[in-house]
Amino acid sequence: MVTRRPKKPTNPAGRPPGRPKGSAEENFQERRLEILRTAARAFTARGFHATSLNDLAALLDVTKPSIYYYVQSKDELLFECGRLALERLTEAMKRAVTRDENALERLRAFFLNYAEIICDDFGRCLVLTDPQWLEPDNRKLNVHGRRELTQEVQSIIAKGISEGSIRPCNPRIAAFMLFSAFNGIARWYRPDGGMKPAELARETLNLLINGLGAAKTVEAELV
Amino acid sequence: MVTRRPKKPTNPAGRPPGRPKGSAEENFQERRLEILRTAARAFTARGFHATSLNDLAALLDVTKPSIYYYVQSKDELLFECGRLALERLTEAMKRAVTRDENALERLRAFFLNYAEIICDDFGRCLVLTDPQWLEPDNRKLNVHGRRELTQEVQSIIAKGISEGSIRPCNPRIAAFMLFSAFNGIARWYRPDGGMKPAELARETLNLLINGLGAAKTVEAELV
Repeated sequence: MVTRRPKKPTNPAGRPPGRPKGSAEENFQERRLEILRTAARAFTARGFHATSLNDLAALLDVTKPSIYYYVQSKDELLFECGRLALERLTEAMKRAVTRDENALERLRAFFLNYAEIICDDFGRCLVLTDPQWLEPDNRKLNVHGRRELTQEVQSIIAKGISEGSIRPCNPRIAAFMLFSAFNGIARWYRPDGGMKPAELARETLNLLINGLGAAKTVEAELV
Repeated sequence: MVTRRPKKPTNPAGRPPGRPKGSAEENFQERRLEILRTAARAFTARGFHATSLNDLAALLDVTKPSIYYYVQSKDELLFECGRLALERLTEAMKRAVTRDENALERLRAFFLNYAEIICDDFGRCLVLTDPQWLEPDNRKLNVHGRRELTQEVQSIIAKGISEGSIRPCNPRIAAFMLFSAFNGIARWYRPDGGMKPAELARETLNLLINGLGAAKTVEAELV
């Protein structure tokens, strides 16, 4: 355990004893990720404002100065957790929009991935924290990343309406509604709760695509 | 403007000059409500943790001690804002479940009201803050109130499935999904945004009840 700030990345703090050594840079990145993951978990379990760097140091069994070796501030921790999640979500979106399927199926593919990602530590942190809590520069980047995803989903919905795979609706409202419904999964998902994120996602998608109304009600509404 | 704590409710602090006097008790309650509403707005606009009692005093143009005349703590402010919203939501639920209609229509009636209430100051405060931020006793009451509503919605869905007005689904997941989708409205609704809560609610309900999939897709899924 390192208590004074070392020159990085020659001596990463807090690497468990006995683990085989990688390169200094690999060790540094690995340890940094571990710190970020612990932060993400604490921010969603206890709340961002209720978690101090001292709390994190205690959870990691290191001193506060050794955390500063990896990140500059609590703001950077929150920002980086969100950035890692947004990176995965952006990848999922890229895969979804290049599928050789209609817009509804692309939407389905994206949101199945979305649910998996937002039930992971960084994803939960992204959707259960507020960009407002970030410092201005980081907030701008975070909001930009979220907005890009929302706009992509809006485009898919608009395309689906024009091609006939998606019911005519307001794409903006539909996109917000989809994200809100799915973000709810991150809010009430419990790893020990019996259902896996993929199952929750399928059930949620089924409801959102087919509607809560029983078939005869849907037909009545369509007249 | 009163700067020292008076004996209540004989001399409510900060009542605007020139307003006709009601009874001391009426004045007290009216002023308290004004303080709660200002707190609810600040908690949702700036964030609960970023708003101090000093900030609130500045917004209300009174001194911090004069706020203590009406509430004991920031925790009480957050709790009371949520309680007022839960009271309205519980009333809306009582009206919905006594309607002489099927479960789907009861659900529709409740969520149309829900959207209106959660776009108001106290409702937004309820859905955009986390019970975790409350002290244990208040948290327990707040969570209990939220849980009762969720359970009522689950019961309506279960009834709808058995009577045939609602598509067979997991009532628990469907209830969480509905609340999540609607809570999103409070998150992105802007009073100056062009659409009224009632319109947003109708569009959202239409999507949730009929589904995003175009009619032919719904039929295909039902086979």
